[in-house]
Amino acid sequence: MDRPIAIAVDAMGGDHGPEVVVEGALAAARRASDVELVLVGKAAKIRTIMRRLGMPQRRPRVVHAEQSVRMDEAPKSSLKKKKSSLALAADLVRAGEADALVSMGNTGACLATTVLKWRTLPGISRPAIAQIMPVPGHPVLLLDVGANVDCKPRHLVDFALMGSIYAREVFGRPQPRVGVLSIGEEEGKGNELTRAALQELKRTPLHVLGNAEGRDVFSGRFDVIVCDGFVGNVVLKFGEALVQTVFDHIKGEISKSLLSALAGLAIRPHFRNFKRQVTPDEYGGAPLLGVGGVCIIGHGSSGPRAVENAILMAATVARRRVNEKIVAEAGRLADVGGEARPEPALQGADAL
Amino acid sequence: MDRPIAIAVDAMGGDHGPEVVVEGALAAARRASDVELVLVGKAAKIRTIMRRLGMPQRRPRVVHAEQSVRMDEAPKSSLKKKKSSLALAADLVRAGEADALVSMGNTGACLATTVLKWRTLPGISRPAIAQIMPVPGHPVLLLDVGANVDCKPRHLVDFALMGSIYAREVFGRPQPRVGVLSIGEEEGKGNELTRAALQELKRTPLHVLGNAEGRDVFSGRFDVIVCDGFVGNVVLKFGEALVQTVFDHIKGEISKSLLSALAGLAIRPHFRNFKRQVTPDEYGGAPLLGVGGVCIIGHGSSGPRAVENAILMAATVARRRVNEKIVAEAGRLADVGGEARPEPALQGADAL
Repeated sequence: MDRPIAIAVDAMGGDHGPEVVVEGALAAARRASDVELVLVGKAAKIRTIMRRLGMPQRRPRVVHAEQSVRMDEAPKSSLKKKKSSLALAADLVRAGEADALVSMGNTGACLATTVLKWRTLPGISRPAIAQIMPVPGHPVLLLDVGANVDCKPRHLVDFALMGSIYAREVFGRPQPRVGVLSIGEEEGKGNELTRAALQELKRTPLHVLGNAEGRDVFSGRFDVIVCDGFVGNVVLKFGEALVQTVFDHIKGEISKSLLSALAGLAIRPHFRNFKRQVTPDEYGGAPLLGVGGVCIIGHGSSGPRAVENAILMAATVARRRVNEKIVAEAGRLADVGGEARPEPALQGADAL
Repeated sequence: MDRPIAIAVDAMGGDHGPEVVVEGALAAARRASDVELVLVGKAAKIRTIMRRLGMPQRRPRVVHAEQSVRMDEAPKSSLKKKKSSLALAADLVRAGEADALVSMGNTGACLATTVLKWRTLPGISRPAIAQIMPVPGHPVLLLDVGANVDCKPRHLVDFALMGSIYAREVFGRPQPRVGVLSIGEEEGKGNELTRAALQELKRTPLHVLGNAEGRDVFSGRFDVIVCDGFVGNVVLKFGEALVQTVFDHIKGEISKSLLSALAGLAIRPHFRNFKRQVTPDEYGGAPLLGVGGVCIIGHGSSGPRAVENAILMAATVARRRVNEKIVAEAGRLADVGGEARPEPALQGADAL
C-alpha cells in the first residue's frame, strides 16, 4: 500500500463552524484508512468536538490556530492574518507536512492564500476554480467559475488542460471531451475571447470538440467546459437560484390542495433523492487548479457529508499526482507552440 | 378610442409552420378588437387555415410572400430573400402600413432584417434582444441576450435605458430598478465591462441599484438586468436546459414506485400550472429594442398561445409609443454627457 495521504483541514472554515467540519473529517478518517488528518483551528474546541463524536482509530493531529478568516472577509484582509487556520493549513502543505488543503471557507481567501504561499504551477498562466456540476450520472467540470474575471485565450487553454487532467485522473474519463462555453455550436459563434481560445485549443493535443452551449452542461457531450471566471460565476449562481426557485414554486403549487399535498408527501423522498444528487455535497467542493498544491474549496453552507467527500477527493487528487501531471503536460503544450509564461495574478481574489 | 394598431405577422416563422401562427393570430384578433392583423406568407395556405379555423369579426388582411426564411438559415442568407414573409412584413412597418412586426422565426434573421430596413433608433448605439424572464408574479427584463456578443459600457447604458422604458410602459413599473449582471453586489466586483458600465450608469437619471447577481433574476429586487449578449445568451440557454433537466429527473424519480407514480398523477396539474407560468409563452416573445420599429421575436417552438400573447404585447408597445420615448430619453441622456453616437452594427446577427 502507498504511504498515507495527509490532508490539512481548515477546521474553522464554513458557515456552521468547526462542529460540521470536524464531524465530516472524522467520517472521512473512518472511511479511508489511508488518509491522515491534520485539523487546524482552535485546538481546545476541536478536541472537545472530537471527544463528543468519538475518535476514529487513526486519531487526527490537531494544529492550533489562534485566528480564523471570516466568510465575508476580503482576501486582502485575510492575508494579514498570518496565524489563521487557513494560513497555517496552507503552510503545512508548503512544508510538506500535508499533501492537500481542504477548506469550507471563503473562496477568495483560499485563492489569495494559496497563490501567495504556493505560487502557481510552472507553465500555468492562471489558477482556476473548477466547479463540478452535479449532473446526475455524469458530473461535468466547469472552469473557471470565479478566479479570473477577465481572461485571455491562453488562460482558457490552461483551464482546458487542467480540467482534462482532472477529469481523467479523478473521474476516470480516459479522453476527456473539452468544449468552450459559447452561444452556438458553430465555430464562428462566440465572442472575441471564445473564438480565439477555440483556435488555440485546436492546436493542442487535447480532445477539443468545439463550442459547448449552456445546455451542454447537461447533455453529456462534454467532460470539461471552459469559460472565463465571470461567465462561469454568473452561470453558477444563476443556476443555484433557478433550481431553488423551481423547487420552492413546485412546493407552493403542491400545497394548494389537500389531495396534492398528500400526494406531495408520497413523492417527497424522491424529491429529496433528486436534490441530494444535484447538491454539490456529492463532491464536497470545487478544486482550485493551477496553484502549487492541492486545494479543495467547499461551499460555506456545506454539511458534514460535503466535508467528508471533499477530503476524500483531495486525497484522490494528491494520490493521483494531478499537479505533477499538469506541470508535465503544460510543459509539452508549451513546446508545441505556447507563449512566454505570463505573471501569476490575483485578479479574481477580491471578486469572490 | 384610439385608432386600431396594425400588426404585421410573419406567418411562416416558427418550427411548426403557419398553422400555429395563424391560429394564435386569430385568437389575438378575437381578444383585442383594436388590433388589426396583416398575415404575411403563402396566401393560399394562410387562407385555407383561416377558413378551417373560422374567421374573426375583423378579417385579417393577407399579404402574399413567395419566400420564407428557414429557422436555421444564416442572417446573411436571409437578407438575400427580398420577398420572404419576414422581409415583406418588415417592409409593411417601414411603409407605415403596420405598427409592429411579430415573428416566431429565426432571431438572427429578424435582427439583421430590421436593422437593415429600419436602422437603429437615433441615440441608441446597439439594438438588444430583451428576454422577459418568466419569474412567476414578477417578470424581469434581461438584456441583451444575444444581439451583441462583445459590448462596451455605453451599450449597457443604452440597454438599461431601453429596458427601463419598456418595464415602465409595458409592465407598469413606475420606476424600474436597474442592475448590472455581475459576480457580486459590491461595486468593485465584476469584469472590466461591468465595472465601467456601472460607473456610467450611475451618472444617468435611471434608477440604478448597482450590481445584480445571477440569483437576482429571481429575487424580485430588480426590474431590468443588463449584460452583454454573450453572457445573456449563455445564461438563457443554460437556464432553459436546467429547468428541463430538473423536470425530467423529477419525473424519472417519481415513476420509480407505484405509490409515487400515483401521487405524481395527483400533482400533475400543479406541475403544469407551474410550467405554464415559467414558459416564455406567457409573454409570447422577446422584444427587439433599439431598432426603428416595434418587433417581437417569439421562440421557434411557440404554440398558438405564445403567438397570441406576442401580438398583444406588440400592440401594447406600439400603443404606448415605447420607441418614441426611447428616442426622447436617449436624447436627454446624451445631453447629460453622452459620447458621439457610434455606428449601428450587425455584429451579433450571425451569432444567433
